[in-house]
Amino acid sequence: MKYPLSPDIKPEFCTTGSFMRLPAERENAKVAIVGMPFDTAASFRVGARFAPQAIRQASMTLFPYHPIHKVYPFDETNAIDIGDVSVIPHNIHRSYELMEEAVGELMKKGIVPIGLGGDHSVTLASLRAAAKVYGPVALIHFDSHTDTWDTYYEEKYWHGSPFIRAHEEGLLQPSKVFQIGIRGTLNHPGDVEESRELGYNVITTDELQNRGFENVFEEMRTIIGDTPCFLTFDIDFVDPSCAPGTGTLEVGGFTSKETLQMVRSLTGFNYVGFDLVEVLPPYDPTQITSLLAATLIHDFTSLVALKIK
Amino acid sequence: MKYPLSPDIKPEFCTTGSFMRLPAERENAKVAIVGMPFDTAASFRVGARFAPQAIRQASMTLFPYHPIHKVYPFDETNAIDIGDVSVIPHNIHRSYELMEEAVGELMKKGIVPIGLGGDHSVTLASLRAAAKVYGPVALIHFDSHTDTWDTYYEEKYWHGSPFIRAHEEGLLQPSKVFQIGIRGTLNHPGDVEESRELGYNVITTDELQNRGFENVFEEMRTIIGDTPCFLTFDIDFVDPSCAPGTGTLEVGGFTSKETLQMVRSLTGFNYVGFDLVEVLPPYDPTQITSLLAATLIHDFTSLVALKIK
Amino acid sequence: MKYPLSPDIKPEFCTTGSFMRLPAERENAKVAIVGMPFDTAASFRVGARFAPQAIRQASMTLFPYHPIHKVYPFDETNAIDIGDVSVIPHNIHRSYELMEEAVGELMKKGIVPIGLGGDHSVTLASLRAAAKVYGPVALIHFDSHTDTWDTYYEEKYWHGSPFIRAHEEGLLQPSKVFQIGIRGTLNHPGDVEESRELGYNVITTDELQNRGFENVFEEMRTIIGDTPCFLTFDIDFVDPSCAPGTGTLEVGGFTSKETLQMVRSLTGFNYVGFDLVEVLPPYDPTQITSLLAATLIHDFTSLVALKIK
Amino acid sequence: MKYPLSPDIKPEFCTTGSFMRLPAERENAKVAIVGMPFDTAASFRVGARFAPQAIRQASMTLFPYHPIHKVYPFDETNAIDIGDVSVIPHNIHRSYELMEEAVGELMKKGIVPIGLGGDHSVTLASLRAAAKVYGPVALIHFDSHTDTWDTYYEEKYWHGSPFIRAHEEGLLQPSKVFQIGIRGTLNHPGDVEESRELGYNVITTDELQNRGFENVFEEMRTIIGDTPCFLTFDIDFVDPSCAPGTGTLEVGGFTSKETLQMVRSLTGFNYVGFDLVEVLPPYDPTQITSLLAATLIHDFTSLVALKIK
Amino acid sequence: MKYPLSPDIKPEFCTTGSFMRLPAERENAKVAIVGMPFDTAASFRVGARFAPQAIRQASMTLFPYHPIHKVYPFDETNAIDIGDVSVIPHNIHRSYELMEEAVGELMKKGIVPIGLGGDHSVTLASLRAAAKVYGPVALIHFDSHTDTWDTYYEEKYWHGSPFIRAHEEGLLQPSKVFQIGIRGTLNHPGDVEESRELGYNVITTDELQNRGFENVFEEMRTIIGDTPCFLTFDIDFVDPSCAPGTGTLEVGGFTSKETLQMVRSLTGFNYVGFDLVEVLPPYDPTQITSLLAATLIHDFTSLVALKIK
Amino acid sequence: MKYPLSPDIKPEFCTTGSFMRLPAERENAKVAIVGMPFDTAASFRVGARFAPQAIRQASMTLFPYHPIHKVYPFDETNAIDIGDVSVIPHNIHRSYELMEEAVGELMKKGIVPIGLGGDHSVTLASLRAAAKVYGPVALIHFDSHTDTWDTYYEEKYWHGSPFIRAHEEGLLQPSKVFQIGIRGTLNHPGDVEESRELGYNVITTDELQNRGFENVFEEMRTIIGDTPCFLTFDIDFVDPSCAPGTGTLEVGGFTSKETLQMVRSLTGFNYVGFDLVEVLPPYDPTQITSLLAATLIHDFTSLVALKIK
Repeated sequence: MKYPLSPDIKPEFCTTGSFMRLPAERENAKVAIVGMPFDTAASFRVGARFAPQAIRQASMTLFPYHPIHKVYPFDETNAIDIGDVSVIPHNIHRSYELMEEAVGELMKKGIVPIGLGGDHSVTLASLRAAAKVYGPVALIHFDSHTDTWDTYYEEKYWHGSPFIRAHEEGLLQPSKVFQIGIRGTLNHPGDVEESRELGYNVITTDELQNRGFENVFEEMRTIIGDTPCFLTFDIDFVDPSCAPGTGTLEVGGFTSKETLQMVRSLTGFNYVGFDLVEVLPPYDPTQITSLLAATLIHDFTSLVALKIK
Repeated sequence: MKYPLSPDIKPEFCTTGSFMRLPAERENAKVAIVGMPFDTAASFRVGARFAPQAIRQASMTLFPYHPIHKVYPFDETNAIDIGDVSVIPHNIHRSYELMEEAVGELMKKGIVPIGLGGDHSVTLASLRAAAKVYGPVALIHFDSHTDTWDTYYEEKYWHGSPFIRAHEEGLLQPSKVFQIGIRGTLNHPGDVEESRELGYNVITTDELQNRGFENVFEEMRTIIGDTPCFLTFDIDFVDPSCAPGTGTLEVGGFTSKETLQMVRSLTGFNYVGFDLVEVLPPYDPTQITSLLAATLIHDFTSLVALKIK
Repeated sequence: MKYPLSPDIKPEFCTTGSFMRLPAERENAKVAIVGMPFDTAASFRVGARFAPQAIRQASMTLFPYHPIHKVYPFDETNAIDIGDVSVIPHNIHRSYELMEEAVGELMKKGIVPIGLGGDHSVTLASLRAAAKVYGPVALIHFDSHTDTWDTYYEEKYWHGSPFIRAHEEGLLQPSKVFQIGIRGTLNHPGDVEESRELGYNVITTDELQNRGFENVFEEMRTIIGDTPCFLTFDIDFVDPSCAPGTGTLEVGGFTSKETLQMVRSLTGFNYVGFDLVEVLPPYDPTQITSLLAATLIHDFTSLVALKIK
Repeated sequence: MKYPLSPDIKPEFCTTGSFMRLPAERENAKVAIVGMPFDTAASFRVGARFAPQAIRQASMTLFPYHPIHKVYPFDETNAIDIGDVSVIPHNIHRSYELMEEAVGELMKKGIVPIGLGGDHSVTLASLRAAAKVYGPVALIHFDSHTDTWDTYYEEKYWHGSPFIRAHEEGLLQPSKVFQIGIRGTLNHPGDVEESRELGYNVITTDELQNRGFENVFEEMRTIIGDTPCFLTFDIDFVDPSCAPGTGTLEVGGFTSKETLQMVRSLTGFNYVGFDLVEVLPPYDPTQITSLLAATLIHDFTSLVALKIK
Repeated sequence: MKYPLSPDIKPEFCTTGSFMRLPAERENAKVAIVGMPFDTAASFRVGARFAPQAIRQASMTLFPYHPIHKVYPFDETNAIDIGDVSVIPHNIHRSYELMEEAVGELMKKGIVPIGLGGDHSVTLASLRAAAKVYGPVALIHFDSHTDTWDTYYEEKYWHGSPFIRAHEEGLLQPSKVFQIGIRGTLNHPGDVEESRELGYNVITTDELQNRGFENVFEEMRTIIGDTPCFLTFDIDFVDPSCAPGTGTLEVGGFTSKETLQMVRSLTGFNYVGFDLVEVLPPYDPTQITSLLAATLIHDFTSLVALKIK
Repeated sequence: MKYPLSPDIKPEFCTTGSFMRLPAERENAKVAIVGMPFDTAASFRVGARFAPQAIRQASMTLFPYHPIHKVYPFDETNAIDIGDVSVIPHNIHRSYELMEEAVGELMKKGIVPIGLGGDHSVTLASLRAAAKVYGPVALIHFDSHTDTWDTYYEEKYWHGSPFIRAHEEGLLQPSKVFQIGIRGTLNHPGDVEESRELGYNVITTDELQNRGFENVFEEMRTIIGDTPCFLTFDIDFVDPSCAPGTGTLEVGGFTSKETLQMVRSLTGFNYVGFDLVEVLPPYDPTQITSLLAATLIHDFTSLVALKIK
């Protein structure tokens, strides 16, 4: 390779640093951070291509031990950070292929990928990879939107459609899909109803609050059981006060304290992959969104470490 | 009219865009957004003159359907946006007249105005208009301050006095005035007591939390009944974490989730007008304050739509 | 049309306001502002989709008369603002077609379009329209980059290639193309040389300063003469201190005072179209970039007015 | 006095700190800094009420010696900072009286006031005070606008009219008024011509550059001679890249280096007062506008020190 | 003293203004605000040296009366603000001595100091002063970190160690130390366990929430009783949404409403001193962190006023 | 090594990424980037510890070829980036030793270090290393301050003293020291005179402008000749409009265009080291300061490449 890496060899929005300064390779790795800086499928604000960089930078202040779960997640999983996939902003399909390939290679080695999006469309690439290795998977989906809109001005692939595309492609076990935290204004009632018609479980913010997340998650645990399970977390699940740096904000969400309590209770699933999407650093002047994202990555890794243990 | 509209024909802080891109006219309109970009009556930070513009811009990401109330508020009310009143920053009284006139015209046609302030003094103009059409009205007032201070350095008309002036002018039915969310340090105990002496119901943040908003609102519903009712919402009711872009912040308020729950429970009143005041875009770098404001406008419109239905 | 305009009827990044509050239609219009909020072809920072909105907002403080040129450009040209083209972020080619159509319609009516980009790839759409109406045109191109790179990760259509594509498509008269202000680091010397091999005149920042812009422009005037001429202005021509809100900044540019002097000297060309591209509002906290852009639009309109007069 | 100073005893936008931590009183003071935090007369952006505070804070990094003029201006003039006038945002006329009184008291004691605005209308108060003590004065006026518009929506007192009002009130010697740096779009040619018809010398940015400031100032020195002279500096004289934090920006101004060279050449005038207006801290995220303002105050004080010496 | 105060006489980061514009001296003062702008002991972000200035500025909007406690805290305690200690950024030990001296002098006069940090290491200086006057004291410590790490790259004095140093120096009664709100990732379990081994009571955020703060504080009240008690408040106790402007943020904290409720319940202790540390203004673009800090100072003063009463 | 790198193994402000994504090792390297994130010696604003990270991030948009010098500087020098020295914020002397060691090792191998500060005191460490390898060196010093103040509150080692300390330690050939761009207010005339008394050549901004930089540099070239030469560049040399993100700004500096012209003319010196100091990312919201810094590093590397060639 020729140095320096000119932007025509690797896009200039791709990071060189790593999450918590992890190495790119380690023996017996069980978890791998992978950047997916693709944001062209966004419909409103753009800039999630800078999220992997920002989240890694925010991770510098995290410490290795998780005091609630009592694990050293990155040590116990020999976690690595393989850097960013060289996505191509102007070509959705080639970018999906590149991301699917990167995630798929990890999965084939038994490594759990933790994707740093990117807009939410990147999850489709991960689910394609997952389905090839594990067959249709269960999905735990935190978000304020169902992302099951069909098309956007006739375009099928955008950040509002990954979970209808995944359904069409048979990547998911619909009854084992839980969409958690849905809220906000809609085009019409069908926006949510169509998701239920796909067979998905839609839990709105109101329902989550009224029933109590422990009860909802207990039901989810019963239904999903040991099915290989992917967890996708759209940061706009959280209230804008705690996560202002995202693209399609919905006021009225849960706080970061509530969010962490929920995520920390999600032990016992058979996780085969994670991602965290829709962090937009240009809209995050205090960097609290990136820090929350980095903390959630620490938690996701802990969920894997607990399972290995 | 001569184009372009030079700033000496219409002030340069007046918007041309509209809320959710509503038209300026429609048959059988029942709701009208109206900008009231007057902020000269503020005592500390200024800049609410840019709020109508910012809230309209934030409204671009809202969708037409309200999933909690199950209405399409803007369709069902044939809502319009009549633009901004051409207020004059250096002349409080002429500005009040212009705003009163604009709001009054709407009311006379049976259209419910939703004013986008401006500082809180603009509510006085709306209440003057309302009283002319409906007689003294009931008032649901969300705020961290009672705004019943008498004078500010001998000036009677400022953003801390609209509700003592409205009382003096007989615009309100005092026993049907509810000031909700009052908190923060005071000049002296009288700041709140004087409001009670006017006959108003003052519900502090602590009281609201301790009694539960459902109970407080139930009482309010009983007392106000079918009386024509104006709802004024000062964004500083909400905690600064959720609404940093305002002029006289008080820490320790409710979150946006709690706030939306409260507002969404306020069905069944005989609304004749609304306003949302004290958003200051220059202090809102993440624009979450404007988005919360736009969302509340969506909710206010829904409250009208529900009534019509 | 159904109101409000839901984001699925018109993208939520499209403006409703207008430049200097111009109307959308007028008799005998000779100039039309048209928003081209397409930014998916950018390679690094994104967000130019919000530029039309921001530039229009900045235009509110401009006055109608141009004291250097002694014209009322918007009156004398009966200028209009036709709003934004409903581009589709996820589809470059359909977006180009929509923009070409909008610009072409204006040109066919003898109206000079002034496009508000968007990333620099939008110019290709305008040049396609121009060539259909006028045949191959001359080009005055202010920029710090030649934008004649062939492909970006094998993609042919991106914001670094419009002027090689335009060449291939025969939209330009190569010897009448002037690229002015080129500077900054390169992949290799060919980045600039290839532009010269296309037959273009490349004037670097250093050459412009050493020769004096009056001399360079005099030569340009001689060569271009009366040929129908398009002027495209990438805001990164200007130094980042005066235009921080753009995507691929190059330090070491001209100031806004120098830039205005240059642009104001460009009288006497047979302008058939203009655009101003690569303003990125999310990176423009003080809004001085948008204000400079709005001022340049005022100047471009004046150049048309002078010609009509 | 009762402590703490509640906002109803002194407005909360009034500073307690002082410029370069000067004392409020000293024997034989020849210069006094005085805050004039009045901004209600502004027509667009507001917030200059916070300028005295911000400029004082920025002054903390200045050192006492001026190496170009070779003076210790604050020592040699026994400079003091008398704090802010308690202006009343909602009452222009009472505010003018209070400011005139504060400035007049200083002038009567032979102290040269340096006012920290505030919007440009505060200069009228200072000129009233000056004319009472010295008779009509000469004026050196740096600005991008002439501020001789008659009315704003029929209001006579606003930040665009101080120099027509001053003319009407006979506060100036018109032939000894120099308006320097005028630029930007206009309502009509009369905006500048009317100023010349008042007898003022209007030097546009272009003229200043073409003639050379030394030549312009030499002529000014000849005409003004020993006449008591007031220097008013609107920060929007400077280019927005160097002074983004102001209310009605005009691109295309001089840099801060050029500006300091001009101001430093203005020795030899019989200064009786100064002010620096239109700094808007809420629009100055990097605080470079306040720092430039503070540096200019250091220079103004030096000009007085040089005269005393 | 020679004026102006050049930065070589008093550091340029020291304030001249005062909290709520309090005087520097008053008869029978019982509370004194004192700035401790020392931040060199921080391990990550720096800038707390500007906190005293920013908190004082934020205090301008507070009013004198505390409506929950029904006191005028600053009147009833004759509170003063003695300005900032002239700390030396490059010398930790001399800075500690200067701060200890300033705080000690107040304590000897029976005045309760309220320190405005500065990083958390400044508390060591206050505790040294307190122990000299009162013997080992009780400590109520709000924080997300225990700050009992031993060394940082072999350095013993830094903002992560004040409470292990205080223990070694015998400044505290360990069983009467309560560390409240601890959360976040750790180096290893010992980070918290070692604090317990010192004899301290460590209450994590989870424990505080699960047990209820009233119960925790009741126990604390029983244990501490009348022991002279110091309250130290690290602003990172609060969630980043409410206090983004700090150096080592931990997501998942309490809101400002919850925080105020806790602090307001802490009546009945024998307070001998307070401080509020780790506010970093450069990371607080909306200034809500400084406002929360200023409000807490108002509350701390009220706790003293209640005791005097 | 154990992963992740916890902040107690390497400080959390140390970068993992690299400049233009250079490798950490290469055969025959002639240039090495080295981060020196030490900022405790600053007297006012702090935060330069984040500069290496920010400059590396900004470097991502640079391309490998330098079109003015016609070199591929990073290829031709086999440039590497060895990451950040693990400095200790609380210990100036240990930090100097660590930096001196890192820089010294490079110099001994014949590699030219390019240090990314850090405050200006880090240059002392580099000069100590240089003098050990090369004996006393020549110095080209761009800055608005001479940094030859003796002590700061009795402390000898701070960012205002490196060049008096270097003189005392015999690290420089005084007659071959050029301090270029000095400007701004002073404590007293001696601030500059004392530098001249040390034998240094002090060129103020005014002198540089009046004489023309070509003439000044020609003289400098004659005097320095082939002496091993260190170039230190304090970003506050440049005007705040082009470099707002620094700690002790002085208005009235050169633009970035002028600055690049100067630096690009500095061919022919026998460079043994460079550094670029005092970039403060927390004060650089538009990141133009970091981009200018990164561009200058590209230029410095080119100056080495030209010499090798």
